[in-house]
Amino acid sequence: MNKKLDKRKLETKPYKGVRDFYPPDMAIQNYIFGKMRKITESFGYVEYGASILEPTELYEAKSGEELIKEQTYSFIDRGGRNVTLRPEMTPTIARIIAGKRQELSFPLRWYSIPNAFRYERPQRGRVREHWQLNADLFGADGIDADAEIISLAEQILKELGAKNTDFEIKINFIGILTRYLKTEFKLDDKNTNTLIKTMDKYEKISQEDFEKITNDIIGKEKSAKLLKSLKEKNFEEFSSYKEIKYLEELKNKLSKSGISITISPFLTRGFDYYTGMVFEVYDTDTENNRSLFGGGRYDNLLEIFGAKKIPAVGFGMGDAPIQNFLERRNLIPKYTSSTNLMLCALDSKNIPYAQNLAKELRSNNLNIAVNLSNKKIGEQIKTADKQNIPFVICIGEKEEKTDKFKIKKLATGEETEANKNEIADIIKL
Amino acid sequence: MNKKLDKRKLETKPYKGVRDFYPPDMAIQNYIFGKMRKITESFGYVEYGASILEPTELYEAKSGEELIKEQTYSFIDRGGRNVTLRPEMTPTIARIIAGKRQELSFPLRWYSIPNAFRYERPQRGRVREHWQLNADLFGADGIDADAEIISLAEQILKELGAKNTDFEIKINFIGILTRYLKTEFKLDDKNTNTLIKTMDKYEKISQEDFEKITNDIIGKEKSAKLLKSLKEKNFEEFSSYKEIKYLEELKNKLSKSGISITISPFLTRGFDYYTGMVFEVYDTDTENNRSLFGGGRYDNLLEIFGAKKIPAVGFGMGDAPIQNFLERRNLIPKYTSSTNLMLCALDSKNIPYAQNLAKELRSNNLNIAVNLSNKKIGEQIKTADKQNIPFVICIGEKEEKTDKFKIKKLATGEETEANKNEIADIIKL
Repeated sequence: MNKKLDKRKLETKPYKGVRDFYPPDMAIQNYIFGKMRKITESFGYVEYGASILEPTELYEAKSGEELIKEQTYSFIDRGGRNVTLRPEMTPTIARIIAGKRQELSFPLRWYSIPNAFRYERPQRGRVREHWQLNADLFGADGIDADAEIISLAEQILKELGAKNTDFEIKINFIGILTRYLKTEFKLDDKNTNTLIKTMDKYEKISQEDFEKITNDIIGKEKSAKLLKSLKEKNFEEFSSYKEIKYLEELKNKLSKSGISITISPFLTRGFDYYTGMVFEVYDTDTENNRSLFGGGRYDNLLEIFGAKKIPAVGFGMGDAPIQNFLERRNLIPKYTSSTNLMLCALDSKNIPYAQNLAKELRSNNLNIAVNLSNKKIGEQIKTADKQNIPFVICIGEKEEKTDKFKIKKLATGEETEANKNEIADIIKL
Repeated sequence: MNKKLDKRKLETKPYKGVRDFYPPDMAIQNYIFGKMRKITESFGYVEYGASILEPTELYEAKSGEELIKEQTYSFIDRGGRNVTLRPEMTPTIARIIAGKRQELSFPLRWYSIPNAFRYERPQRGRVREHWQLNADLFGADGIDADAEIISLAEQILKELGAKNTDFEIKINFIGILTRYLKTEFKLDDKNTNTLIKTMDKYEKISQEDFEKITNDIIGKEKSAKLLKSLKEKNFEEFSSYKEIKYLEELKNKLSKSGISITISPFLTRGFDYYTGMVFEVYDTDTENNRSLFGGGRYDNLLEIFGAKKIPAVGFGMGDAPIQNFLERRNLIPKYTSSTNLMLCALDSKNIPYAQNLAKELRSNNLNIAVNLSNKKIGEQIKTADKQNIPFVICIGEKEEKTDKFKIKKLATGEETEANKNEIADIIKL
């Protein structure tokens, strides 16, 4: 036992960058995940799951070098294996599907709400662990599949209470920016990548820093022109690309369902496995100009397992940005305990009666806590109130004799008299 | 990119000792957790949560040395911190409660269904990650609290379909065995602990191995007598202990609710933090004589955080033993997809109509997948069947014109004609 422990002063804070979920926090997560789950299942997606631990090599192929080298939790286990706490779910779903490639029947729609770890993403706050809805459609490669994934994402935001004006959906097609830069500026792969990364963060860095990097690659004049295009969002050069025509078709299709999207040829995504349409959803609130979440098409990912290629499209929607988005719009309901009623005993000898009553009420699908503390009745009611339990009934000799109760609604102080068999109806009102 | 990846032959197996949950596996977990959740909430417990990552020192005080030194996943993070993947939830709930000791109102009932990691427990199979319902009652120290925790555990087993004869609940009181051994054999702490650990596994090891250890400590004659007591479950020596009298009172109380428990003075638990009643539930099937799950009272755990002591009692119920227990009794329902209906398009031009129909049906709380594959209709129906989606409707020109459909129930092949607004009722029947 170390010195700290002898002094009995262990920290009560959680590990750096992760969150504790007290019941009101957990209720928010459950609320958000419940809505995500409801809509995602309504689109025919079924739930799967996997461990947070994955072999490190799973991420070495396609997730992007920066992620693995700098941002993962990786370690060597007691058996000498390289293990990583998954930083995202897409490689895992690809692995699982590749594992039963022959037995599974396509198209298939799968979802999960896993947690994932990143060692550091200072640009997104200090959360190192987040939960994320992942919805993926495998085995369908047409425009309808791309449209469905975007519709699903949009529908979830709507279900959570967001209005059309609260968010903007930007889409792009992977590769066109690379092609444009290579053609326009005759660049090699390395310079192309540097340029794309710089363009991606042009709003976050100073003009000076932007030019410091781009001047070296394409010269002062072209650099200024590029920055101007970015700022004016003027991308005429792309309009003849067949990929842009595809995105316009997708845009038309979605607009028929009332979903509006913006084509953004400079949009990029953080992973290397995308192969087609990509999208990101942005908060329109100017206080928060970061991406809320995104996704896209990745048709080749199964190949890293030696499995035949399967078209795939999906997205990941993290809990922290969504919660922030909803909180700033007052879209999260006030916390109420999942416990409907606390039975308080005036005296310890009333506890067995309260326990029996609780048992009967539970069979009516009520959630009932019996206060076993033997504290004064006022204290017991205060406990119910502090725990956001909406109703209390106090049990004393009189109640035991008459089987009649006063149900107190703590929010208003209102009391209702009831027989045993009326309690459930009053509480469920 | 390493050699393996160049060859495109990444493993599809999960990391050693953890499980992938394909949708039918996930459905089993959801079924079991759903029942656990329902009953636990009905007893007034509210959900909390925490990260899988904890500071390693959290386990150094009270979890038991063997666990930390040999069985945890621990590593040093990029910032030099000692981190552990939680091996169990009790230290975490104690940490979280200690962190808001002043703001929380007691008694409080909390539950969670976290995952937890053990590097190796060969005696329980090779699962290194398991999920576990944890239910804990803080701030109530009487016999009613101990009784409630056992009632809750029993009620969950009942809700899952178990009968009284399927399991046996054994209880003990921490400390009495130590006291007995010290008094009877005049042993020091070290020998007492060795003896207790040996006694704990007397059924799993040979008589020879048992005696090899115990002869050294208490001599041949007493060793034989002890083994005889263990085998005959004859513990008269304890009967005068006040702790046994307490357990008898608890037994009487529970028997009034139809719950039968066995007092087992040799029962131990794997953690060092227990302070009172402990219990374990055993499968009565002789094929499986291992403990299914257990728990007990731990009144002093908050002290390691320098917080005032709070009485606490709880249990942890792991998914793997429970699933095994239910499977051997055929108590897990047959898998059906959460998707109620697949809409199949005879031609790709019927897809938009199918998508609109899906949209309408979703607003009736149906979960609808649209098959976007453009495969032959027979293939599409086969996909629905393989994915355990119970109903299909095929959409062609005729359906588009008439808005009339044939709903096919795949289990029986039975077809029902329906208008748009009749579909939901037929499927929900």
